[in-house]
Amino acid sequence: MAIRTHKNTDKVPEPTLRRLPWYLSCAKLMREKNERFVSSTQISKQINIDASQIAKDLSYVDIAGRTRVGYEIDVLVRVLEDFLGFTNLHRAYLFGVGSLGGALLRDSGLVHFGLQLVGAFDINPDLVGTEINGIPIYHTDEFEARMQIDLVNIGVLTVPISISQEITDKMVAGGIKAVWNFTPFRIRVPEHIVVQNTSLYAHLAVMFNRLNEMNT
Amino acid sequence: MAIRTHKNTDKVPEPTLRRLPWYLSCAKLMREKNERFVSSTQISKQINIDASQIAKDLSYVDIAGRTRVGYEIDVLVRVLEDFLGFTNLHRAYLFGVGSLGGALLRDSGLVHFGLQLVGAFDINPDLVGTEINGIPIYHTDEFEARMQIDLVNIGVLTVPISISQEITDKMVAGGIKAVWNFTPFRIRVPEHIVVQNTSLYAHLAVMFNRLNEMNT
Repeated sequence: MAIRTHKNTDKVPEPTLRRLPWYLSCAKLMREKNERFVSSTQISKQINIDASQIAKDLSYVDIAGRTRVGYEIDVLVRVLEDFLGFTNLHRAYLFGVGSLGGALLRDSGLVHFGLQLVGAFDINPDLVGTEINGIPIYHTDEFEARMQIDLVNIGVLTVPISISQEITDKMVAGGIKAVWNFTPFRIRVPEHIVVQNTSLYAHLAVMFNRLNEMNT
Repeated sequence: MAIRTHKNTDKVPEPTLRRLPWYLSCAKLMREKNERFVSSTQISKQINIDASQIAKDLSYVDIAGRTRVGYEIDVLVRVLEDFLGFTNLHRAYLFGVGSLGGALLRDSGLVHFGLQLVGAFDINPDLVGTEINGIPIYHTDEFEARMQIDLVNIGVLTVPISISQEITDKMVAGGIKAVWNFTPFRIRVPEHIVVQNTSLYAHLAVMFNRLNEMNT
């Protein structure tokens, strides 16, 4: 018997969006082991999250479980990947080909999770005109012209903090709809623009602090 | 008149630890502009966070402000960098020299925020014995022996999800005290071990979802 729970159509809370990839990797792992079904109780045991929380999170996703056996793993993986946007390629530009920017250009893993970097911008004459991992690097001045050609709506921000805001403003003026901000600077954007902050340095600070506490 | 507010000695909440780097980059930026003092009201205007929140966050840090003029910028930068652990070099190993792992080895920015990668581990014979950005790559089997020499207590996890738990267990058994987990897998560790999850893919999922919402 398939139980199709009523799909929750509310706005998906951010904590749920952050947990769903855990369920996805758990399901992928079980698929590698040739399992066919997984229940929220099984996922719960593996990743130490309450089974009722898992069921609630999955209520946002259009998936049906079966009594006793749970979710079909192949379906769960496909539906979650779809829902999380990993199966669609989202075209993006990267701004600032410094140490971290260059590293992200070289990370081919992003494309498997739906992010395709199609170009990068910098003002360094040694970089402009070259490419990294097949991705062309243009002069920042070329951004608006490239936007007409490349149809991009995501910008990855890896510039120095001194120009974080200026480059963000430029992106938004050029038509970028979402900024993935890797700088430790808190950028300001108009209300209709999405910002995702991923400050590796803030995460380091949290880790160092917790490590200190453990050792005192 | 210097107002030394009583330093808050409670455990620092994670949201505070995540905001402090914003104040730090704001202060650094003002220093570049040759400003000498900054008040929480000024920081508040620049980064759009309540001034009372900023003052509260800074109460965890040992810093004195002056009536009307605020904090001395040089001191604020130094004290925040210290507090966040960016001035101490924390020695770390990286596990899994794939696409993201290799990218992190090439990111020289981490060392400016206190993380020094002193070695990496993989099992790929094409990588073992080589180095990236001056960082030697060893065979995973050499980990325990290297630990005796390198005095490391942080491990950066960038392996495939199928071995995330196994490598985590190995790290912990070898004496690693904190795991910076870049995999989308939710690893389990003993209570005294610090885990910092930084899943780029979970952040991507949040961004894609918000972007979709904006456009529907």
